[in-house]
Amino acid sequence: MTGDDAAGNGLLSRRALLKVSAAGGAGLLAASAGGAERDAWMHAPGAPMSESGAPSIHEDVRRLGVASAPGTTGTGVSRTPLERLEGIITPSRLHFERHHSGIPDIDPAAHRLVIHGLVERPLQFDLDSLARYPTVSRIQFLECSGNSGALTAPNPVPAGCGDLHGLLSNSEWGGVPLALLLDEAGVKPGAKWVIATGGDAAVMSRSVPLAKCLDDALLALYQNGERLRPANGYPMRLFLPGWEGNMSVKWLRTLMVTDQPAMTKDETSKYSDLGADGRATLFTFPMGVKSVITSPSPGLMLGPKGVYRISGLAWSGGGRIRRVEVSADGGATWADAVLDEHVLPRSATRFQVAWRWDGRPATLLSRAYDETGAVQPGRSAALAGRAPGSFYHYNGTQAWRIRADGSSVNVYV
Amino acid sequence: MTGDDAAGNGLLSRRALLKVSAAGGAGLLAASAGGAERDAWMHAPGAPMSESGAPSIHEDVRRLGVASAPGTTGTGVSRTPLERLEGIITPSRLHFERHHSGIPDIDPAAHRLVIHGLVERPLQFDLDSLARYPTVSRIQFLECSGNSGALTAPNPVPAGCGDLHGLLSNSEWGGVPLALLLDEAGVKPGAKWVIATGGDAAVMSRSVPLAKCLDDALLALYQNGERLRPANGYPMRLFLPGWEGNMSVKWLRTLMVTDQPAMTKDETSKYSDLGADGRATLFTFPMGVKSVITSPSPGLMLGPKGVYRISGLAWSGGGRIRRVEVSADGGATWADAVLDEHVLPRSATRFQVAWRWDGRPATLLSRAYDETGAVQPGRSAALAGRAPGSFYHYNGTQAWRIRADGSSVNVYV
Repeated sequence: MTGDDAAGNGLLSRRALLKVSAAGGAGLLAASAGGAERDAWMHAPGAPMSESGAPSIHEDVRRLGVASAPGTTGTGVSRTPLERLEGIITPSRLHFERHHSGIPDIDPAAHRLVIHGLVERPLQFDLDSLARYPTVSRIQFLECSGNSGALTAPNPVPAGCGDLHGLLSNSEWGGVPLALLLDEAGVKPGAKWVIATGGDAAVMSRSVPLAKCLDDALLALYQNGERLRPANGYPMRLFLPGWEGNMSVKWLRTLMVTDQPAMTKDETSKYSDLGADGRATLFTFPMGVKSVITSPSPGLMLGPKGVYRISGLAWSGGGRIRRVEVSADGGATWADAVLDEHVLPRSATRFQVAWRWDGRPATLLSRAYDETGAVQPGRSAALAGRAPGSFYHYNGTQAWRIRADGSSVNVYV
Repeated sequence: MTGDDAAGNGLLSRRALLKVSAAGGAGLLAASAGGAERDAWMHAPGAPMSESGAPSIHEDVRRLGVASAPGTTGTGVSRTPLERLEGIITPSRLHFERHHSGIPDIDPAAHRLVIHGLVERPLQFDLDSLARYPTVSRIQFLECSGNSGALTAPNPVPAGCGDLHGLLSNSEWGGVPLALLLDEAGVKPGAKWVIATGGDAAVMSRSVPLAKCLDDALLALYQNGERLRPANGYPMRLFLPGWEGNMSVKWLRTLMVTDQPAMTKDETSKYSDLGADGRATLFTFPMGVKSVITSPSPGLMLGPKGVYRISGLAWSGGGRIRRVEVSADGGATWADAVLDEHVLPRSATRFQVAWRWDGRPATLLSRAYDETGAVQPGRSAALAGRAPGSFYHYNGTQAWRIRADGSSVNVYV
């Protein structure tokens, strides 16, 4: 180890990160001409302005793993290609999907949200009436509780970062605090739950504790500045910060205030956790603290040995990320990663660390801590007490094995 | 005034905002059926998952005022439709444009950034070498120095919020701190400026003080999570937080370190400020503190009298927004608006306030303060000392006149 080393196998200090260059020399070229020759594309005017911009034709970044249940076209998932993105915002076109009977084409002028049940005044709201209410906007993650579940398989699935962890996206969500609407309806004494129902053909339904609805729940109308897109619940969805994505019911249509949960098919047949003792745990709502290295990861090749940037995302349903550690020796030693400037509660947080790769095989992991003191567990601890095949709410650490040729692969340590 | 009033003509307090409903009664409907009947779109499965999502067909939101200089197709602007957006992120497809000779189609594999001039080691960088450097990501605004210039016209232009102020967008910008690359090249003593040149056919060039380049300047590679789009400088651009947009040179190709500015055509024929005394001021880089009410605004109709949400954006090249005031009586009295949770430095910041509209004509204004103590001026103060036709760096307050029919129009007060 030199003075810049922070942990084993070439992990460098924060100071080194802020100073480090591609000091191995690779990729740096001496300049002589000073850009005197015009490039080919500078000889004629370029493309005009337009009413709507598009990504570069040289960057073909799409959702991954679009898959539907047999016999259906709209019951399945698509995943965010985490390894192709930077920063914390997920472009809306790449936000993951999990639909139970496809994306309904809702007429916004005809759609109503009804609040009924244990309330003084059953009410219904259309988009025009909601536009009069105060809104809040916050940058927060949404994660399917089945995300990363492939890591519960007995043997490592040969897949990439987005394939394994891409049921996680991060957006600016804007809308009306649900507490305002419930207050207006007048919640009756004895109310404890709210049954949220979607306007899709599956009538996706979940039971949400009233306390969450009165805390930070949103009736979301906007995502990343614009109206929700159809795949994210247009014209309105529930958004429950930090909780399993399925509860943030899309195409939200009714909220029934009750004194008990409804035990819907979507919270009993799915999204419950089967223990090794054969007992299922219901209603495990907050998503645990988690992190994953997005680069390097499978599909992104390292070049020659030298200094590289290790980068990834960390997030927690418990609040802000406080710390992320990275290991380059399979978990034997750890170095603190640097967190980006924006560390927001219940938001994906970007971390990075500099790594001097010696060109030999190495195993990279990351481990996140949140402000509640929760620590991301290793794989064994994350599996403890689970029945085989129980894959929801998995938040164990992810290891990538870097091969001598610069490729990488999902491994267990 | 009642106990909830915070200023004249119906502006309500923060407490009222957090409690207020559409208390006038408009838009609220008693619910009886409780959503028992399925809507038409719930009778069959909806659309499948896909590799790339799109906005709703029911929301046709586009850039405004796409216009090019006579005889050209790529020398002009397009504007962000601010009145159609919420929160602080501008969707990348709606980011404003200001091009000087169109959008070049740059081959990312062939593109190089050259750093030369007063440096120890002239260097060039390609995308692969830059991928090894540490990055930062920050949510910050970009504003053309000509934004809002229409308000310098002798008579109010009958135009909307985006038409007048839409050369302002806000994004998460990610990339390599320019200081790292300059440090690697080794800036020589005596260096004071950096001449930045773009790879478009206009070879757009600006002189940037070295101090800014060593402070918070970015070599931006990512916008809102994905690679820069062509209209925003793909594959790389300069990004100078808080400074006039033109200096954040797109399609960045060369940085020449010098001891003096280059006095390029783009900083002499344009983007300088002509005073009433006939003298021009060069190099007025930071954008002033500014705000605008996005809703209500022209094109967005109010319904019947009652309580409405006034919402808008504030931003400053000086740092964080500290306070925004709103007036509903043409500037006679002012009430504090509520700022959203995310108040980030040199970022657009959302503000809102509740307003009890009595159905009579009213004049709305907003006024922003930043953390340096700077205050957005009124129109007269903003025009003081300017030559007629000098329209850059205009940051005066914007007044909307609300008519009895619920429409609104740009006025001067």
